[in-house]
Formats: sequence, structure tokens, C-alpha cells
Amino acid sequence: MKAVRLHAYNQSPVVEEVAEPTISGPFDVIVRIGGAGLCRTDLHIIEGQWVEKSGVTLPYTLGHENAGWVHAVGSAVSTVAVGDTVIVHPLITCGFCRACRAGNDMHCANSAFPGISTDGGMATFLKTTARAVVKLDPSLAPKDIAALADAGLTAYHAVKKAVPVLYPGTKAVVIGAGGLGHIGVQCLKALTPAEVIVVDRSAEALELARGWGADHTVLADGGEVARVREITEGQGAEVILDFVGEGGALESGIAMLRRAGYYYVIGYGGRLVVPTIDIISTEINFIGNLVGTYNDLVELMALTAQGKVRLHTAVYPLEAALDAIHDLESGRLHGRGILVPEEA
Amino acid sequence: MKAVRLHAYNQSPVVEEVAEPTISGPFDVIVRIGGAGLCRTDLHIIEGQWVEKSGVTLPYTLGHENAGWVHAVGSAVSTVAVGDTVIVHPLITCGFCRACRAGNDMHCANSAFPGISTDGGMATFLKTTARAVVKLDPSLAPKDIAALADAGLTAYHAVKKAVPVLYPGTKAVVIGAGGLGHIGVQCLKALTPAEVIVVDRSAEALELARGWGADHTVLADGGEVARVREITEGQGAEVILDFVGEGGALESGIAMLRRAGYYYVIGYGGRLVVPTIDIISTEINFIGNLVGTYNDLVELMALTAQGKVRLHTAVYPLEAALDAIHDLESGRLHGRGILVPEEA
Amino acid sequence: MKAVRLHAYNQSPVVEEVAEPTISGPFDVIVRIGGAGLCRTDLHIIEGQWVEKSGVTLPYTLGHENAGWVHAVGSAVSTVAVGDTVIVHPLITCGFCRACRAGNDMHCANSAFPGISTDGGMATFLKTTARAVVKLDPSLAPKDIAALADAGLTAYHAVKKAVPVLYPGTKAVVIGAGGLGHIGVQCLKALTPAEVIVVDRSAEALELARGWGADHTVLADGGEVARVREITEGQGAEVILDFVGEGGALESGIAMLRRAGYYYVIGYGGRLVVPTIDIISTEINFIGNLVGTYNDLVELMALTAQGKVRLHTAVYPLEAALDAIHDLESGRLHGRGILVPEEA
Amino acid sequence: MKAVRLHAYNQSPVVEEVAEPTISGPFDVIVRIGGAGLCRTDLHIIEGQWVEKSGVTLPYTLGHENAGWVHAVGSAVSTVAVGDTVIVHPLITCGFCRACRAGNDMHCANSAFPGISTDGGMATFLKTTARAVVKLDPSLAPKDIAALADAGLTAYHAVKKAVPVLYPGTKAVVIGAGGLGHIGVQCLKALTPAEVIVVDRSAEALELARGWGADHTVLADGGEVARVREITEGQGAEVILDFVGEGGALESGIAMLRRAGYYYVIGYGGRLVVPTIDIISTEINFIGNLVGTYNDLVELMALTAQGKVRLHTAVYPLEAALDAIHDLESGRLHGRGILVPEEA
Repeated sequence: MKAVRLHAYNQSPVVEEVAEPTISGPFDVIVRIGGAGLCRTDLHIIEGQWVEKSGVTLPYTLGHENAGWVHAVGSAVSTVAVGDTVIVHPLITCGFCRACRAGNDMHCANSAFPGISTDGGMATFLKTTARAVVKLDPSLAPKDIAALADAGLTAYHAVKKAVPVLYPGTKAVVIGAGGLGHIGVQCLKALTPAEVIVVDRSAEALELARGWGADHTVLADGGEVARVREITEGQGAEVILDFVGEGGALESGIAMLRRAGYYYVIGYGGRLVVPTIDIISTEINFIGNLVGTYNDLVELMALTAQGKVRLHTAVYPLEAALDAIHDLESGRLHGRGILVPEEA
Repeated sequence: MKAVRLHAYNQSPVVEEVAEPTISGPFDVIVRIGGAGLCRTDLHIIEGQWVEKSGVTLPYTLGHENAGWVHAVGSAVSTVAVGDTVIVHPLITCGFCRACRAGNDMHCANSAFPGISTDGGMATFLKTTARAVVKLDPSLAPKDIAALADAGLTAYHAVKKAVPVLYPGTKAVVIGAGGLGHIGVQCLKALTPAEVIVVDRSAEALELARGWGADHTVLADGGEVARVREITEGQGAEVILDFVGEGGALESGIAMLRRAGYYYVIGYGGRLVVPTIDIISTEINFIGNLVGTYNDLVELMALTAQGKVRLHTAVYPLEAALDAIHDLESGRLHGRGILVPEEA
Repeated sequence: MKAVRLHAYNQSPVVEEVAEPTISGPFDVIVRIGGAGLCRTDLHIIEGQWVEKSGVTLPYTLGHENAGWVHAVGSAVSTVAVGDTVIVHPLITCGFCRACRAGNDMHCANSAFPGISTDGGMATFLKTTARAVVKLDPSLAPKDIAALADAGLTAYHAVKKAVPVLYPGTKAVVIGAGGLGHIGVQCLKALTPAEVIVVDRSAEALELARGWGADHTVLADGGEVARVREITEGQGAEVILDFVGEGGALESGIAMLRRAGYYYVIGYGGRLVVPTIDIISTEINFIGNLVGTYNDLVELMALTAQGKVRLHTAVYPLEAALDAIHDLESGRLHGRGILVPEEA
Repeated sequence: MKAVRLHAYNQSPVVEEVAEPTISGPFDVIVRIGGAGLCRTDLHIIEGQWVEKSGVTLPYTLGHENAGWVHAVGSAVSTVAVGDTVIVHPLITCGFCRACRAGNDMHCANSAFPGISTDGGMATFLKTTARAVVKLDPSLAPKDIAALADAGLTAYHAVKKAVPVLYPGTKAVVIGAGGLGHIGVQCLKALTPAEVIVVDRSAEALELARGWGADHTVLADGGEVARVREITEGQGAEVILDFVGEGGALESGIAMLRRAGYYYVIGYGGRLVVPTIDIISTEINFIGNLVGTYNDLVELMALTAQGKVRLHTAVYPLEAALDAIHDLESGRLHGRGILVPEEA
């Protein structure tokens, strides 16, 4: 089958032929990919940011945001059948550790992360397990919803954490209206009564954000902190959802945060730097966010089925993966890039 | 009356005569001080770290950790009477803003902070309000419990936030077994079933920590991260309570934190510096802490009455305030320093 | 001034002349009433259901749901001024007890409840305190929003408790689409992504419920349990909000509840009767609800300002209070009845 | 093998020979029983209270509280091995439904409950799954800890829910100091700073309760409500844990509850009957409790390993099951009855 493989860090991946995965355990599931999302994390992987954390051996197949149809199942699988349309939770989990038993799939002590630590879904087929697949209505096209598997899940997971803090009259700032942020805006509107302020460097992205429900949009042109403080009557916002996490976003984001507020770190690349006196004198909080739980993904699919979350995607043939990567790097990719294998 | 006054930053305070405070509003309360705690924050104030945040005009009276007896009350005060023994919540609050109406006294939009932003309690008398005083059993000696007003309250407030995370089988690291830390250890034992690991640079402090209930003690000699990871079976601890917040404590503390763990920033002085990829890949959290609520203080007094929290103090006459400050700076002050006016 | 006074239980109240209230304490506030809501609780009071609980001495003035303009203030009041438009939180609270210090106004240990335990607002003037008034935009007409002070607050408070349970894909049943229920539906839609099922005996009320956002409506004609179980795929709903609490609503409501579900008791009059084996074998929960906090009322006013909550009212002159009571008793009063003094 | 089998409701079970269970699925685990607890639920089953809820076909083997050693495992089991000492979570769960994915094992949509809905552990062998067994230190004797599997788990689960409500200065009433209650007292002391008041009809049980940590004991002789209100300064207790749930316990328990308090229904048999006006005017809550989660059981084993929970048991040979049942019925069984097969 065809797959997008990384052979060396800081070099372009290669689209090449590899062997198809096969069923080996009783709960294995092989998914025929209908759509595999392209993510800024893929760029970070290529740059080598994940070398130590992933521990992956090169070459391997990229793609941690996948949807498709069940192609084959292990002997003990009863929750899905061949032909079912599925979206794939990003982690392969054991189901037995403390984290799994508490529903915190992203902290499984024995997990694999296809596309990060093992072969992913930028390919014709992906091998995962019955614990990772969410069965969908057959009318859904995998390429239309694949971006919910990671970008959507991550945004939803962070928004859900913020729900207890966002009562009527509060304001939430979304930094970055890209692949994750545009889903974050919609999740905020669906789950909370907060007013949503979107901050982005692109006037075009802000224009789109208004369509997804943003109450205020602020161009990140250097005056964004002052503008957000003005909208929040000088107090700052109760919640900052930082989907960028690098390149000045953190510094300005922290300056937009209200006393006792919550700053959700979602995007990454930069460093969080704060004097501890600032943390304690205002009692602010920084909350890490890593994809989400299986139930989070099910809930996000419920929102989508209700029409409360729509995706903005740009489809590329799997064979054109390098074009998509190049477009993402150069800022020409609007919405989430989705790679679709020829057969899908 | 006598008072410990700061006339200039980076200079020693002066013990001098000033006018006594007087009742001006219906809810004013004047407390005759029985004990005023000395805190590392007093050193930070003298160093000028609080110049911008406090906005105080020099000279003013230090002392934000106070207990004593009610000396005079405003016309509308009905909850305490002259002669009552009281401990003083550090903040003067309005009672009408959103934060006050939610019980979050430390975020009052119209507050004053005696000893930080206005005249404090290192003096014969302190002016505060009926909203700040907690009535105590008359058998209690103010000098014996004054340190609970700020050091105790701050430690208790942070521990209480950690309660939901500290189920049986978890471990909490206390960094710093000084004035706040030794109360933190006792609050952890009283409120949670967690095993408590205390980390400190002083073998003597660790010896004392065992008496307060520490399950493990670790000397901060450079090998503390390795030792804590060994005690936590290589995983790190679910909770870090950092009562130091400077001088390497943060770097080693973060390295002791488990995936999905909570790091409580309590001590301050240094900077929190973390790559965002480390925050998101392990989904860790940094939680600011600022004194505590009025109800927190009442709860802490209940623990004290039950014998679950004992204080380690070193008493100085108010006139010897500079000796106490010097001893704290030089590391010779063991336990919490308490200044006691001559008349008390 | 004119007032609607109860002279004896099980007799009609009387509209008569009484002395105007006067300022006596530093935080007193006298409100010129612009609208006073009529509530099923007023009927229950007249029937004598509250005799023991309220401890009120007859005669007294009814009316626990009030809005108007500040008419006079005590010497220490700084948060409102004469002429301000205000809505009145139903309780006069002390601000000093544990409950007040935690924001739980409805559990104040030293409270008075105008209209229940002391003179209420079905009159030209109402005496309350600075702690009870929420300042509003002067453009608002008190008669248009008075019903939010109790009916709205109670519905909002219960819905807010249900927020953590109502993730995407869940369903909430609202029993009773009357004065409280119609606000409950709107609060559910504003605060949660749950699908809302409204159950009522009146087809007309259900028709209105659809306009407020109900996703499903079910006529309470004896088949309502079966219908709700059908809509919830045989499982029952995660949340039941029972705004009726008598006359069969409880029995059918419990039968609509899902395993591990939450039943919010809001309306009253009947008895909750459940075999304990049913409670433990499905692990269901029954949650009491009593008006709400001051901050709840502020949040509800924010929702109203955003256009997310609209009221359905029927206005009567204060002098026609008995007509309004009669219409409520006989089921002819649609929406919330509001009494308006002549001068307003 | 030997097993205690129920052939007809309202007749004594029979100790008889049955076939041994065998491995059929990849995650099956067969446990050689070292101890099987006897529970008041076994009496309720014999009385027919569970006929409709369990749907079990007679005859079947009783015993839902089990510990022992792994005897055989299915092909995919990797978390335990033959010979391991294990305690058995009461439910066989699917691991794939929403409840399982949230860690709420007791609400699994596809569960079996050995001893209730299928063959239990009052036998030489029990068939369960890898998801139900908790591996223990080999030094532990199953008969000494078996009672934690259900009585302990249920008590722990209820106490854990009460943790957020039980801050220093609060009081918790434990109704019933028997098989569950005596573990409840110890869990309260281990997890919370609350003062514990134990109410029981037996002076002997109260004497034992003091040894487990009860701060106050109250004989249920008709004066218990007055006595508890006296201990709680006329306010009632913040928390009631009712381990009895029948025979007057509910009526007196509700009368001991404070405003805004929480009543945990754990024991069963009787009916909860409360006027709704009482529920709303004090805003009280009734919380159902059903065994607990797998992680709850692991946490309880951690408490036990730390010496914070000790069991009071009375051991009978499996063959003497009817003697044990008779002793429990007649009130002669002190502590938890444990049946031990001959071979164990």
C-alpha cells in the first residue's frame, strides 16, 4: 500500500509502497483510511521536536488524525464489524492501567500513538484496536470528519475543562483561529455561555471566525493585549485557550488573563516563562492539554451530528502529501489539510 | 504606639512611635496585637519585589500575619465584641464584589492588604474590619496561633485545592519545610490519605518534618530528583507543593512531577520556565496560590483546635524586630518568627 | 402605601393601606416596586404549607419576587444610589455566617425572606438591604424582569447544578413548562449542549416550549413515561428537572430517570417516595433546590442582557392581585403573573 | 466442586457439588476462592427482593464478595498469572460502553454480577475476567481481605463521594456499625478531617466503633435524633451515611441532616419518604450508592496496606454456610462473615 514515511529528521517525508498491516491480537482493528489529517505536529515531528518523547524508529508512517472504514478485526472484536464507518481515537490503549480505568486514555501507561510513536494513518490502511474506534453513521464521509480525531478532540478536551469557569458574563479568548482554534470557537459556543474573543494574525481567519460564532475578533498586530483588556473592561479574560503556544502568543496571552484565571496550553513550540510572583499575586493557573479521552471524542461526534461543529478542510490526494505539508508551512493552507488515499 | 515601619526599599525597617489607628467606619475593628508573624514576604517587600504590585506609599507599617484581642469596634459590628480573642484574615474586603460574593476573599475587587498595601500589624494596634476577624476560644494565646493567619492560611489553601487529586496510593511532595511547609505537611496528613515526601536543604528541618508526619524525607543535595523518582517508582508524584519558588526549587520540582500532575506555586521569587511541549505532552498543570478565604481560615482554626496542626515558632519582642529579620535572612530562624508587643 | 396582605390562612389576601417602610440600619435599601411576581408558592403560603417553616406573624405583605428602583438607602450603602434600577435577590442575608462567606446566600444563618418570613414586595415599597440588590441597566423596565428574581433564579440555580452532568449527547427532561419551567428550558439551552425534552399537561404550553428551544415535547396524558423512554432509547434521561413536585409528577419523573441520573426537586407540594433498593441498584440521586445565590442572579441577568432568556408574563395592576391569584389557581394564567403598583 | 446454591426464594440455600467453571473467552480468569463474604444482600436475595432486578435463573451460586488465587487465565490475559493472590471486583464489565470508558464499572451496560445475576464465589472456584481482578501482595491471606471486595468497596465509594463536603469542622453520621459501617468509619477517618458520629442499636457495636476511630457514639434507643442534634449544636450533620436503609433508620437519619446536607443511601430494604417542601426549603440531597469502581477497590487496598483499614471478620467453613446465614439473620454474627472452602 501507499504511505507517507519519514526517513530522516529535517528532511521531507516520502510517499512510498509498504506492506499492509495484519491482524495479530484479538482486539486488533485495521481501518481502511478515508481521510488522514495533516497537523502542525507533523511539522514539529519532521523538525525533530518529538525525537526523545516519541522514541520512534525511522522510517515510519506519519498521520495521527484518522477516519475510514473497518477493514479487518481480531477474533474478540464485537463492537465494530467490517465495513463500519469509524473515526479513530489517536491512542492505542491497554484498558487495564489506572489511567484507562479512570477513562483518561491519553495517560495510558502502555499506550502507542500511531503517527507519533508507531505507524500512522497517512496510508491506505491503519492498524489500531477496538478500544480506539468510534462507530459512526454510515452516511458520514471519513474525509469530512477525520480532522475531529485529533484537532477536534484536542480543542474539545480543553474547552470541556474550561466549562466550570465559564458562567454567563465571562469571556474566553481563543488565540489562533486555525485548524484547532476554529473548532475551539464552536465548542465554546456549544458548551458555554461565555463571550468568545478570537485573536489571530490573519484578518481572513478572523473573518471566518465570526462565521463560527466569535463575538469579538482582534487582529494580532501588536495591539491585541490592549484591545482584549478593553473588551474585558480592563480586567482580562477568565479563560485563555492558546492554540498557538509559540512566537509571542504566550507573552501576550498571559497579559490578557484575569486574576484567578485559567490559561490552557494547547499549541506548543515555545516556552512558558512567568515570574512566580505574578503567578501567586494574582493566583493564575496554567493547564496542560493533550488530545482527549475516548468519551470526549464520542461527545464531539454528538455535537457534530447536531450540526454544532462544522469543519473547514482542504483535501489533497495522499500522493500529494508533500504539497499539503508545503502549503501548511508557508501559511497557504486554510482550514485543516486532509489527505485522501486514491482508493477512498 | 510602637510600630515596625519601612521608610525606604533595601533599607532596614525602623521601630518607632506612630499614632494609634481610630474607628472611622461602621464595620471597623481595631485589634490589640498579641502576635505578628514575620514572613519571607517581608524580606521580599524590603527588597522591593512588591513595589509595583502593592502600590503602597512609604513609610508604612509591616506585618500581614496577625492575632490579638478586639480593642474597639464600629457602630454596626455585632459579630465580635471588645475583649474577644481573634485571628485576623490578611485582607480587608468589601463584601459586595463578585469575588466576595463567591467567598473568594483574596480576589476582592476593592481590598486592602494590611502589611502589604496599608499599615500592618507589627505594632501595638491594627485597624481591620469585622469581615476579617475570626473569633477564637479565649484560652488561646494570640502569639501561639498568629502564624496561622498567613503562613498557615496559605499552606492550608493550597493543600485544600489538592484534596481531589490525592486519593489513597498517591504521593505529595512538599518542597521546603520552613514556616509554611511545616504547616503544609500537617494539613496534608489531616485532609488526605497521600504519602508525604518532604524535600529540604536542611537535615535538621527534615528531622522536624518527620515529627509533623512526613512519610519520607529527602535532602536537597543535588540528588533530590532522583530520590523522589525512586520513591515514586519512576513516575514522579501526583502533587508538588512548592513552598520555595526560587533558587532551583522550580527546576527540580517540575522534574519530580508525574504525568497529569499538579504543581502548586506557593513560594515565589524565581521564574517558572517550561517548554510548552513538556506541558502538553504530559498534560501537567501549574496552579497559583494566594493566601486563602475567610472560611479556609476558620477551617484551619478547627484543625488546630483538634490538635491536628501545631506551630513551630520563635518569639521576639516587637522591639527586636530587626533581630528577627536578620535571623530569617541568615537562616538562623527555625520555625515561624513571631513579634510580640510589650503590652501583650 | 398599598400592599397585598395575608390576614388568615385559607382566606384571600387583602389589598389595603399600610405604613411605608423606613431606613433603620446602615445597609438598608428601600425599593420602589416596579413589578412583583406572583408564584405558586404564594398559593402554598395561603394554604398554610409554610406556617411552621416561615414562622411569620399575620398579617403581613406577600411578594418574594421583586424589581424596581432604589428609593432610599442607609448611611453605609455605596453600591447603589437613589434612582438606580434594581432586581432584588429574595433573601436578606447577614454577610458574616459560613454560608454567606461561601456565597450560599440561601443558607444564611440569620436571613429574612421578604414575602415569606417578613413583609414582601406586593406593595408600593419594599425594605431590603444593599446585599440583596443587583443594579441593572436603566433601560430595563422592572415589570419586564421581576420574574427573574425568584422563578428565574430558582430555575437557573437548578440548571447550573446540572451543567457538569449534561455533556453532548445527553438529554434533560423539564417537567412543567410554566413560570419556572419556561425559564429552565432557556437556561438549559444557554448553558448546556443537552437535548431538552419538555413534559406538560397543556398542549398550549408545549407549543410555547418549542419556541423557547425545546427539542422534544411530550404531553403528560398518561403515556409520558413511555414516550420519554422511547426518546431516550429505553435508558431514561440523565437529568430530570421537576418544576411541579406534586400530583403524579414525581412518580412519572422518577420512572424517566436513567441509571446514575440526577433528579432535581424544584416544584413542591407532594411527597418523594422511593424504595431504597431502587436508589441503590441504579445509583440515582435526588437534589434539593432553593432559589439561588446572589451571583446566580447576576449571571441570569447577564443571560437576559444577551437575549438568551426571555420572559413570558401577564401584567396585572397591584390592586387586581386577587384576580391574578384566582387566574393562577384556575390555570388561566399563562406565563408569570406580575403585579404593578399604580405609581410604577 | 462445592458451592452454596439457591434453589428457591424464601428457602435456605444448599451446599452441594457442581461442575467447575472453565475458561471460554480470551480475558476470562478463574479464581480459586480463599474467602467469600456473607452480606445482608444475600439475605435480601433469599427473601426475593432482587428477583426482578437480577433476572437470575435458579438454581445458582451465591457470593458476590470474593478473594483468592488465580487458577486459570484466558489466552489474552497479561495482567495476572496463575498463582497470583487477587481480590475480585464484584462486576464483570465489558470495557467498551460509555460507563466503562468513564471508569464507572458499576454502570457497565453489558455487565454480569457474580453472586447476583450469575454464579458467585461461595464455591471452590469463581469465573470472572481480567478486568475484575486486583493483584495483591502474596503475603495477604484472601480470607482476611475478602470483605473489602463488596462491603469495603461500597463503604469506601460512598465516603469518597462525601470528601468534598467534609472540610475541617464538619460532622458525619454513620448509621449502622456493622459489616459496612465499621469500614465506613475507618475510611472517613482516613480520607477526611470530619468528626465521626456512629449511631447503632447495639452498645457492643458502639464500643467497637470507638476503637475504629468514632469521635462520638450514640445508642439508637429512640433518643438518637435529639442526641445527634445536640452534638451538632442543633444544626444536624453535614453528611449522613446510612448503612441500614430500613426499619426507622431513614426517618431518624433525615431528622439528623443539616440544611444543604447530603444523605448517602447505602443500606436498603425500606422506603425513602420525604415531603418535597422539606427537600426544597432546606435544599437537602439524597445520593444513591452502588458498590464502587475498580479504581476505588485499588485505592481501598492501598488504605489497607497502609494499615488504615482493618476488618472485623468471623470465619466459617464453606460447608457451614447455613450456620453463618442463620447467625447473620439472628444478629449473632459480629463483624463480616467469611466462608472459606476446605482446600483454601
